[in-house]
Amino acid sequence: MAKAEIGLVGLGTMGSALALNIADKGHSVAVWNRTHSHTEAFVQEAGPLAERIVPAETHADLVAALAEPRAIILMVPAGAPVDEQIAALRPLLGPDDLIIDAGNANFRDTSRRATDSGGPFLGIGVSGGEEGARHGPSIMGGGERAYWDRVAHILKDIAADYEGTPCATWMGEKGAGHFVKAVHNGIEYADMQMIAETYGILRDGMGMGYDAIADVFAKWNDGPLASYLIEISAKVAAATDARTGEPLLTVIADSAGQKGTGRWTAVEAQHLGAAIPAIEAAVAARNLSAKADMRATGEELFGAGPQPMGPNAPSLDSLEQALMAGKIMCYAQGFAMINAASDEFGWALPLPEIARVWRAGCIIRSAMLNDMADALAEDPARNLLFAPFFADKVRAAAPALREVVIAAQAAGIAVPALASGLAWFDTVRTARGTADMIQGQRDFFGLHGFVRRDTGESGQHGPWAS
Amino acid sequence: MAKAEIGLVGLGTMGSALALNIADKGHSVAVWNRTHSHTEAFVQEAGPLAERIVPAETHADLVAALAEPRAIILMVPAGAPVDEQIAALRPLLGPDDLIIDAGNANFRDTSRRATDSGGPFLGIGVSGGEEGARHGPSIMGGGERAYWDRVAHILKDIAADYEGTPCATWMGEKGAGHFVKAVHNGIEYADMQMIAETYGILRDGMGMGYDAIADVFAKWNDGPLASYLIEISAKVAAATDARTGEPLLTVIADSAGQKGTGRWTAVEAQHLGAAIPAIEAAVAARNLSAKADMRATGEELFGAGPQPMGPNAPSLDSLEQALMAGKIMCYAQGFAMINAASDEFGWALPLPEIARVWRAGCIIRSAMLNDMADALAEDPARNLLFAPFFADKVRAAAPALREVVIAAQAAGIAVPALASGLAWFDTVRTARGTADMIQGQRDFFGLHGFVRRDTGESGQHGPWAS
Repeated sequence: MAKAEIGLVGLGTMGSALALNIADKGHSVAVWNRTHSHTEAFVQEAGPLAERIVPAETHADLVAALAEPRAIILMVPAGAPVDEQIAALRPLLGPDDLIIDAGNANFRDTSRRATDSGGPFLGIGVSGGEEGARHGPSIMGGGERAYWDRVAHILKDIAADYEGTPCATWMGEKGAGHFVKAVHNGIEYADMQMIAETYGILRDGMGMGYDAIADVFAKWNDGPLASYLIEISAKVAAATDARTGEPLLTVIADSAGQKGTGRWTAVEAQHLGAAIPAIEAAVAARNLSAKADMRATGEELFGAGPQPMGPNAPSLDSLEQALMAGKIMCYAQGFAMINAASDEFGWALPLPEIARVWRAGCIIRSAMLNDMADALAEDPARNLLFAPFFADKVRAAAPALREVVIAAQAAGIAVPALASGLAWFDTVRTARGTADMIQGQRDFFGLHGFVRRDTGESGQHGPWAS
Repeated sequence: MAKAEIGLVGLGTMGSALALNIADKGHSVAVWNRTHSHTEAFVQEAGPLAERIVPAETHADLVAALAEPRAIILMVPAGAPVDEQIAALRPLLGPDDLIIDAGNANFRDTSRRATDSGGPFLGIGVSGGEEGARHGPSIMGGGERAYWDRVAHILKDIAADYEGTPCATWMGEKGAGHFVKAVHNGIEYADMQMIAETYGILRDGMGMGYDAIADVFAKWNDGPLASYLIEISAKVAAATDARTGEPLLTVIADSAGQKGTGRWTAVEAQHLGAAIPAIEAAVAARNLSAKADMRATGEELFGAGPQPMGPNAPSLDSLEQALMAGKIMCYAQGFAMINAASDEFGWALPLPEIARVWRAGCIIRSAMLNDMADALAEDPARNLLFAPFFADKVRAAAPALREVVIAAQAAGIAVPALASGLAWFDTVRTARGTADMIQGQRDFFGLHGFVRRDTGESGQHGPWAS
């Protein structure tokens, strides 16, 4: 048998799906897993694809099975397992052989490994879950461009396709790919949270049943909100619990889990001084969702949060517009954070390309991303909100966002992410804000000084300084 | 001359003030500064206090001037300068000699230094600005208790006094003191931001002049909001620019600076999984305040944010109640974060003592902190919001918070922190939230599994899994 084109380490859910995807697209792949019986079972179940899959029992077998210069994808849990695999493989590899971490690494680890992992290294963010990995994920690559170019043909073959364009792009040096993936996940958190808040308004404020809610989301999926997350929200709302026959949403506990990538995004935003309040609100909402006891106590003490909205309920059109406006705020914050990272880390993260690579394959794929790519191509440094196309959309939709947030608050329905989107919007359209008071206070208690509006002089003080 | 009781390194604004405070309270202090002429000038200007101040020209002089076992306070910029001073001093010190970092260290650095700085070490957070350092700061100590006990008599002498109780307390091992100080600063950010938002409502929504605004804050300072920050807000609003004779607030540019401690708090909250949305909103607001060009563009494109509220303007009583409710939310979030840190770092951070130590000397000192200390003493593990005293206050004041947030949003006035407080409140009083939708989505796209509400079984899946 000829040598395999690429290797893959780690046949968990994501790794298995990716290996099958590679074989499916006509590339030969050598695979290794810690438990060899699992590797054998995997090849057995691969059916006709098995002819392009080479099972390796040891790292040495894996390396021997690969054409040179070799390329090996790691799909193992983030953190120490990645370093362990690198340490085990490097001594067996030649100086030109490439290791690719396709797991959920923290981009700072990837940046470190790009320089200290003993040889050629790429870190690629892979989004789309198991389904995406199997049939076409969105791939965000980082590391030396020359390494990317060596494997780009395979990565583009396995990536999602958006009208003929593969969703696999090199983002920049070092951890750039995993950084962009982190922001993707942060936006995903915010988008999901805004959908959940809208669901809360439909369910608690407007008293709709689950089938009716499913219909609303399904209808929205034919309009400007068309996106994977809206599509699956309709399916989740329509689903029935097999055991009880009840709507599935009445069975699912309202405690959201998280694997931490939203937190990473929030932490990095702090380091960058980037304002991503919608993402922060979403992460905080997940944290609070896990505190069921606390919320039960709160309801006992202060009365149930959500009340029927009655005649103040917004129309479904207003809700749709509000969700669209909120979503634009999320993305505007996320893209601004990406630009801040380019400045901070010396990258030139390609904003239009990022929007393009998210158009298919990943969790946040949506119709709107194509328009965002166009808007960002006009001027990547300009905030997305200010691109004429989106400024027009927001000008039309912001009143609905305002109406919906106010109606929800009046009914005691928690809308942290939508409200943070509105606050962000009102902040960035207020040329003269209220931080003069904060600067006055800081000067009063700490002589921190302020800038004069009239002359621009800095280091100025109030009368208390003399 | 007898040996000095304590040493102090770094005669900047804070260090000088602290040295004078020590001498003022009857303790002898040996001082060293990088530039010796500055040390000489400092002693010259110390007047009669100079008799208890020993100027040292070298580190060796400083060490020689101190009674054994020695104790030396460092008041130098956070980061490398602290490590440099430790490295310079340790070789000159005995094994029992104590180094105390009283600067603005990141608590993780303090925890590291507690074990690897080569000898006895304390990290103490000192709050209150120059005025506090000179006449009585709030002091939050961390490190081995025995080291604290060695210097506690001096630290209590120089600390602020609250009705006979000194505001200086040992918080726990390692970086516990600097951690508590960080949360203090986070709360300070949120408190200041909520005041600034209220100022915005008075100024832009209600069209009040600066003197009238000053009167409002001054009046509030006689009620339940009585606090240092409200007191100085009145003074800032009343101040006149010496150059133009205009109200000072019209002269101060609305771009708030930050030294990063609010960011640290936000970052640590993410690591702890603690929800502190009011603090995050305040940090984000400072970040956006610095983007004046962006906000000017936003105003051009979307119209000026703040509009007159007209007849929908809330009463001054409502504003006062809303600010009080918002403030309680900030503190409830901050204290919950402190409890999360106790769990995470194996501390037993003394919540009632923390509230007590903040009653005087520090920036967030307020009448309310005494009530908080009492409420936390009843049950430190219970969220502050649920303590009967504060639950009653919030039950009475929450409608005003809701009214004010809604009125501000209706007028296009940005109230990110107040709105986040309201969203947090509505979230924690809603036993059944909307994270069922998020868990449904996560199970749909990633088979993450959910918990059943009816049986509590985990790892459950929707029909898409079969």
